[in-house]
Amino acid sequence: MYRSHTCGELNLSHNNTTVTLAGWVQKSRDKGFMIWVDLRDRYGITQLIFDESRTDKAVFELAKTLGREFVIQVKGTVIERESKNPNMATGDIEILVSELTVLNQAMLPPFTIEDETDGGEDIRMKYRYLDIRRNPVKNSLLFRHKVTQEVRNYLSDKGFCEVETPYLIKSTPEGARDFVVPSRMNPGQFYALPQSPQTFKQLLMVGGMDKYFQIVKCFRDEDLRADRQPEFTQIDCEMAFVEQEDIIDMFEGLTRHLLKEVKGIEVDKFPRMTYEHAMKTYGNDKPDIRFGMEFGELNAVAQHKDFGVFNAAELVVGIAVPGGAAYTRKEIDAFIDWVKRPQVGASGMVYCKYEADGSLKSSVDKFYDQDDLKKWAEITGAKPGDIIFVLSGPANKTRAQLSALRMEVATRLGLRKPDEFAPLWVVDFPLLEWDEESGRFHAMHHPFTSPKPEDIHLIGTEPGKIRANAYDMVLNGNEIGGGSIRIHDKDLQARMFELLGFSKEEAENQFGFLMNAFQFGAPPHGGLAFGLDRLVAILGGQETIRDFIAFPKNNSGRDVMIDAPSAIDNKQLDELFIKLNLNS
Amino acid sequence: MYRSHTCGELNLSHNNTTVTLAGWVQKSRDKGFMIWVDLRDRYGITQLIFDESRTDKAVFELAKTLGREFVIQVKGTVIERESKNPNMATGDIEILVSELTVLNQAMLPPFTIEDETDGGEDIRMKYRYLDIRRNPVKNSLLFRHKVTQEVRNYLSDKGFCEVETPYLIKSTPEGARDFVVPSRMNPGQFYALPQSPQTFKQLLMVGGMDKYFQIVKCFRDEDLRADRQPEFTQIDCEMAFVEQEDIIDMFEGLTRHLLKEVKGIEVDKFPRMTYEHAMKTYGNDKPDIRFGMEFGELNAVAQHKDFGVFNAAELVVGIAVPGGAAYTRKEIDAFIDWVKRPQVGASGMVYCKYEADGSLKSSVDKFYDQDDLKKWAEITGAKPGDIIFVLSGPANKTRAQLSALRMEVATRLGLRKPDEFAPLWVVDFPLLEWDEESGRFHAMHHPFTSPKPEDIHLIGTEPGKIRANAYDMVLNGNEIGGGSIRIHDKDLQARMFELLGFSKEEAENQFGFLMNAFQFGAPPHGGLAFGLDRLVAILGGQETIRDFIAFPKNNSGRDVMIDAPSAIDNKQLDELFIKLNLNS
Repeated sequence: MYRSHTCGELNLSHNNTTVTLAGWVQKSRDKGFMIWVDLRDRYGITQLIFDESRTDKAVFELAKTLGREFVIQVKGTVIERESKNPNMATGDIEILVSELTVLNQAMLPPFTIEDETDGGEDIRMKYRYLDIRRNPVKNSLLFRHKVTQEVRNYLSDKGFCEVETPYLIKSTPEGARDFVVPSRMNPGQFYALPQSPQTFKQLLMVGGMDKYFQIVKCFRDEDLRADRQPEFTQIDCEMAFVEQEDIIDMFEGLTRHLLKEVKGIEVDKFPRMTYEHAMKTYGNDKPDIRFGMEFGELNAVAQHKDFGVFNAAELVVGIAVPGGAAYTRKEIDAFIDWVKRPQVGASGMVYCKYEADGSLKSSVDKFYDQDDLKKWAEITGAKPGDIIFVLSGPANKTRAQLSALRMEVATRLGLRKPDEFAPLWVVDFPLLEWDEESGRFHAMHHPFTSPKPEDIHLIGTEPGKIRANAYDMVLNGNEIGGGSIRIHDKDLQARMFELLGFSKEEAENQFGFLMNAFQFGAPPHGGLAFGLDRLVAILGGQETIRDFIAFPKNNSGRDVMIDAPSAIDNKQLDELFIKLNLNS
Repeated sequence: MYRSHTCGELNLSHNNTTVTLAGWVQKSRDKGFMIWVDLRDRYGITQLIFDESRTDKAVFELAKTLGREFVIQVKGTVIERESKNPNMATGDIEILVSELTVLNQAMLPPFTIEDETDGGEDIRMKYRYLDIRRNPVKNSLLFRHKVTQEVRNYLSDKGFCEVETPYLIKSTPEGARDFVVPSRMNPGQFYALPQSPQTFKQLLMVGGMDKYFQIVKCFRDEDLRADRQPEFTQIDCEMAFVEQEDIIDMFEGLTRHLLKEVKGIEVDKFPRMTYEHAMKTYGNDKPDIRFGMEFGELNAVAQHKDFGVFNAAELVVGIAVPGGAAYTRKEIDAFIDWVKRPQVGASGMVYCKYEADGSLKSSVDKFYDQDDLKKWAEITGAKPGDIIFVLSGPANKTRAQLSALRMEVATRLGLRKPDEFAPLWVVDFPLLEWDEESGRFHAMHHPFTSPKPEDIHLIGTEPGKIRANAYDMVLNGNEIGGGSIRIHDKDLQARMFELLGFSKEEAENQFGFLMNAFQFGAPPHGGLAFGLDRLVAILGGQETIRDFIAFPKNNSGRDVMIDAPSAIDNKQLDELFIKLNLNS
């Protein structure tokens, strides 16, 4: 072993003992007669001291040559520091070095290995192994490990069995694009990488495994938004002989356990909200409820006056921004510009200040008197000192726009506190959503989600109104988990595929194995999947998932460190019975 | 919840309580006035009773319709059984059913859902979800879960951090064939699925993670032998600032822990054996040491007589088979035929019975007298009552043949006891092995394995004699884990690639990122990987890994249940910039 202790554990109780440490040179201060070196490993930093008067000359000379990030091994004596550093675990001691070995030299790193580095995103990704040496990334990876250990132990204690499902499966055109893998042994055929183990976990329920989970990589070949990865990790769960309430109980328990174990936070029973309520109140099916600013619908009080814009709108809806009466005209204009950005897409914004003296002052005073505006304040819950922001237009779009504004305002007001956690369940999702582009219904969750029994009669008449036995767990404005009670009846599943526009042949060809399985005694079952990358990032109080993934890919799906993907040679292509077709 | 209890937990302490159970009908016996049903779930079997005189008529009639594998829910009262079954956890009670709900009907399964099924391998794979209902498969999956939980908890307690490495990486022509994944966003380029996370775990060491592990899927597109899978699972581990001894200590500790926790077996410190000794003594680098039959080399005593076959052989080597003197001529001939099979490839076999009376009788008595044969007995350790089997020919081939024979004999003699565990370390592997076909050296483990420092001087002169800092953990004749201390010096790594026939450009193109990383302060490091599928199967006392994999593939790499791989449509191919090339 290259060390007797780590760089994070020595203190005064080790005083005068001889120790061996190994690690990286964090920094070195050479005062001529005395050299101090901060030696770093995963566990901490320990100060080394080389003293011209006490250290062997050869060792002292060698110490002068040490550069940042050199890998060294030292033997020495633990001594009490003259000037202690109470902010460091090892701050009471230092090591008077007697032996020094350079295990490996290091070139100057392309960015500083500090909590606040001077390296940009691109260079840090290219040298990710150096980035991982930095505390923020290293600690994120350690935190992720702690979370997954807690999840595994909690679920195992509850009787869940982790089962590995295959990675080389079958491609299905439904949903997002698959990554595919040509088969050498089956010419012209391809495996697909799983977008989720959905059908396999259902088959495990048919197989009587009763309680399944898996922490598993999933793959989606989609155009990548800023914070998406082509490969991502799910905590995938399924239970048999359960109803929605059982699933909610179980995974609320898990989440509460996590919050307690990894954050030290106790939370109450999670509130529940229907999809409809969430959309009307927050314009969003994953509302951040750490703060208020609930939507107030103003149609009844703002329409039928002389303001044509509102009169023509399907929905007039506003939020009260706390303290917003103090905004300057310039600040308000900035918000108006913000909602007009293409990413938000509003055509304009009306506002109304509720002054501290109780008077109301709006941008549409021409059309509304104080009594009218008072009603706006009542409905949006504005108090003196607030400002009301009002958007109008087609209902769905306007809600989405106001939701974006609400989040932006909250961020600027510091209401989205990373150390506050407000989980909730959103329930009663629609089973289907209409897709304008393809002119047909899509499954809102996936084709295996069961309709609520009381809504099944709507299948033939108003399928868009069928609610699903589906539920999402939402945390701080993020969907961190989602699931449903599944269909376990072959005929209902066939009906569902029909509703989604599958021909009998397509359904049979793609999901015949599942429908067949349902004929051999499928139990009622349901489950849920958490997005682990996101969950860990939120628990870690971060907005971005990248620091919680050891080797992430960039927005073009490239690993810039190893330079993948890359060309392969013709022999490989031939063996796989494919060739390039770059002009397609 | 569909149940108040599982089918495995009720006993006399629940007498007279009302319970609700749900599960599958294992079997049903209809005696006219009385119907017994065995209800099964993952946890056990509970006997239900429907009694014409005590059960509601409608319920009784419905019970008559129940077929095998129907999914039902029942409510009833726990009562004491008249004829108890001491072999069942629930054997003291039965449930007098008052309510019965059929949750799902079932077609007759294509094979019996019993411990000993009438279904062959193919049909069981096609309906794997039914196969999983059988105890042998279900228990194997639960056992696998238990093993992985133990591994994770043990390593976490020791300070290891599980880090997920990417699945979409870069193809490297070295070693086995990669599965590749065409990239839609990077036309003409391909990802590869990892054969192991080798380079990533080394980069994590460069990144200071210090102790890494991962239970991770790996992929090899090789022609599948009987018990190989294209996707398999590794327990992958790496440590920094360690020497071989530290790795051996740590993972011997893990394995000892597993044997104790999952098998209740305490084992001593594992013996160690050099590769050279293993090859000479067992003809094999993964010897099964649950039994003896060590090789005795007979050249000195069997050559230079008049037996031309032996005289012409590079090696004459034998084993003493305990009790073998009792073999009939027919039995011996069967062994001779066995070694002559093409899979073994011997041209013949000489034998020598060591009779109980102390006399020796060989198939080559013409050339050897009693004194000669006595020496054979001494060298092979034969005792009166044994038989000596002797093979001869080129050394390596002959050893491999005798090793195969030794294992076959041991199997027939029942010496390979599934409940006996004899782990050992094989150490001091050669760094390189000569490949006749390509006329160059290959890395015996992989190109990142470090040579023993004392052998480095042989690089320029006799590279074939360099020993590696490599070690395998062997259990009952299987390599269950293997690893090495890695090269952490850029120049030595470059030298190694050169030795393996890489041009500078190839080395740079494929592994430049790793050699670059070594320039920024790589610590000494090493690790090991266990084959989880095999490890679990051996711990479970089984020869085959399939029952320990939920959804295995067949020998053509097909998943016959979901029918994968399969054709994909032209639109998908176009998007990926490839086309089929079936005439390649």
